[in-house]
Amino acid sequence: MQGTMLYGPRDIRSEALPEPKITRPTDAIIRLSATCVCGSDLWPYRGIAPIEQPTPMGHEYCGIVEEVGKDVKNIKPGQFVVGSFATSDNTCIICRDGYQSSCVHREFMSAAQASLLRVPLADGTLVATSDVPSKEFIPSLLATSDVLGTGWFAADAANVKPGSTAVVVGDGAIGLLGVLSARQMGAERIIAMSRHESRQKLAREFGATDIVTERRDEGIARIKDLTNGIGADSVLECVGTQESMMQAIRSTRPGGYVSYVGVPHGVELEGAGLFFAHVHLHGGPAPVRRYLPQLIDLVLNEKINPGKVFDLTLPLDQVAEGYKAMDERRAIKALLRP
Amino acid sequence: MQGTMLYGPRDIRSEALPEPKITRPTDAIIRLSATCVCGSDLWPYRGIAPIEQPTPMGHEYCGIVEEVGKDVKNIKPGQFVVGSFATSDNTCIICRDGYQSSCVHREFMSAAQASLLRVPLADGTLVATSDVPSKEFIPSLLATSDVLGTGWFAADAANVKPGSTAVVVGDGAIGLLGVLSARQMGAERIIAMSRHESRQKLAREFGATDIVTERRDEGIARIKDLTNGIGADSVLECVGTQESMMQAIRSTRPGGYVSYVGVPHGVELEGAGLFFAHVHLHGGPAPVRRYLPQLIDLVLNEKINPGKVFDLTLPLDQVAEGYKAMDERRAIKALLRP
Repeated sequence: MQGTMLYGPRDIRSEALPEPKITRPTDAIIRLSATCVCGSDLWPYRGIAPIEQPTPMGHEYCGIVEEVGKDVKNIKPGQFVVGSFATSDNTCIICRDGYQSSCVHREFMSAAQASLLRVPLADGTLVATSDVPSKEFIPSLLATSDVLGTGWFAADAANVKPGSTAVVVGDGAIGLLGVLSARQMGAERIIAMSRHESRQKLAREFGATDIVTERRDEGIARIKDLTNGIGADSVLECVGTQESMMQAIRSTRPGGYVSYVGVPHGVELEGAGLFFAHVHLHGGPAPVRRYLPQLIDLVLNEKINPGKVFDLTLPLDQVAEGYKAMDERRAIKALLRP
Repeated sequence: MQGTMLYGPRDIRSEALPEPKITRPTDAIIRLSATCVCGSDLWPYRGIAPIEQPTPMGHEYCGIVEEVGKDVKNIKPGQFVVGSFATSDNTCIICRDGYQSSCVHREFMSAAQASLLRVPLADGTLVATSDVPSKEFIPSLLATSDVLGTGWFAADAANVKPGSTAVVVGDGAIGLLGVLSARQMGAERIIAMSRHESRQKLAREFGATDIVTERRDEGIARIKDLTNGIGADSVLECVGTQESMMQAIRSTRPGGYVSYVGVPHGVELEGAGLFFAHVHLHGGPAPVRRYLPQLIDLVLNEKINPGKVFDLTLPLDQVAEGYKAMDERRAIKALLRP
């Protein structure tokens, strides 16, 4: 089958790879309807998060179940399923509390930029739709697998409520879907920090009421201007750098909420500064599994259209162009068709 | 009047100082019934938080109002009052949200280790009791001014709820009153991390169900043993060092809550580690004013006796011995009688 391997910085290749097999009785094999390139894939692609060996890439997926292991009870061949980038048994005490992405049996998915994928803990990880959805829903259903689920967690962890003022730091797919999520949760004012016209446009379509193009001190001053001088109730940090994290913390009012949902790279938070900022801080790998049933319903009921973040569609074997376009910020997010 | 000045590391002096005067029309002058030495006073006393000039010390206070400025409406001479270490107008948008210790007009109190004290923003900062309380309540009422209010915030910010498992890192007065607060909020299991027998005893009196004497990896292993292998729901960090902060974060279950209420000294939080810990983090200067009415009621109705943290009582002019006893950990907390 066709798969995707990263060999080193900017050396990403589409290759013929062996088909995955059921290796544990709780596994499922799915035939992917679509997969995509994640902003987080760019960290190793750019060499910022070094890899030790050739690495199969991809962790966003939806498709049709081909085969299940003998202990899989709920997921059946022929079903259309979506899963999270983190596997979960969905029964442990941490899963039951809604933190499936820290499940005691968690594994992080890889190898999803392929035509076939092995999914461990299929019963706990995958959510099946009642029918096989029609093709036009595929991009949005694929988005629920990670970027929408992560943007949703960003809004939830930042305590967005009806009437809130929310700031979104980062105009990648997750930031844009953070805007959509904040809108769904009833935020009254949603300020997107973005310098890119096409992304600003999508942010507005998803519900942003204001755009701030300034960064650092000027950006913070603009946010304060828009929030009675005190900062926002909720700030969604959707980048993962020191600058974006400080931008987020300093844009939040005392007593407000900061979420962070991208793996931080080189971020150090100084204790006393955080203390006097007086914010709530919550983040981590998004527990997408918690939100999947609700998000799939919103998509299938045409309440939301998160698939709009895919502004580039390529056949799977042109995955390298997908990485390149995203790296050069020519594309927000590349969908791959196996 | 008698007051207290810090001149440099371990050079604390009781001195005759000019009496404070009303300088702004929102000020009050109070005659202190009691004051005390705070754990946070030990940072400059030990030279860890250097001072630039001789500094008047003390920020915990209760007493009788002597005089008020012409714009003070609610506080009247003759009333018994308690106030927080942070002044607040109690009307701004941040105060109304319960974060009075980040009030837009906040000042941090000092000069309270004295017989008379000027309190800015008297109407917003001070809470008066309906009658002048009898003497036996003074230590507990004094405790509400900071250490109880701060311990209470620690438990609240760590989301302690009925049935929670809570860990308290730190066995100073704030940690001990964090135990008391967690008990009041209905925690089922309260694990106090303490190596000092007298403090363990008081922790148990205040409601601790378990004592952990180990620290670092061993301490974390003990906490995990006591919490189904996953860590506690709520962890109250009541010290303010790198070690205590990491102890707290690593003792918390994914999805759990960490609070931190002492000014962090030399603390740096590494972003990726915090991300994968998956905890909620909240802290800062405790908004004691939010809790004062409730805490004063609990004291006057004899539901709680937080004054037990004062295990040393001295006349005000022996303040130096109070610092010394706390520095050497001979005393948990020294009460000073003007």
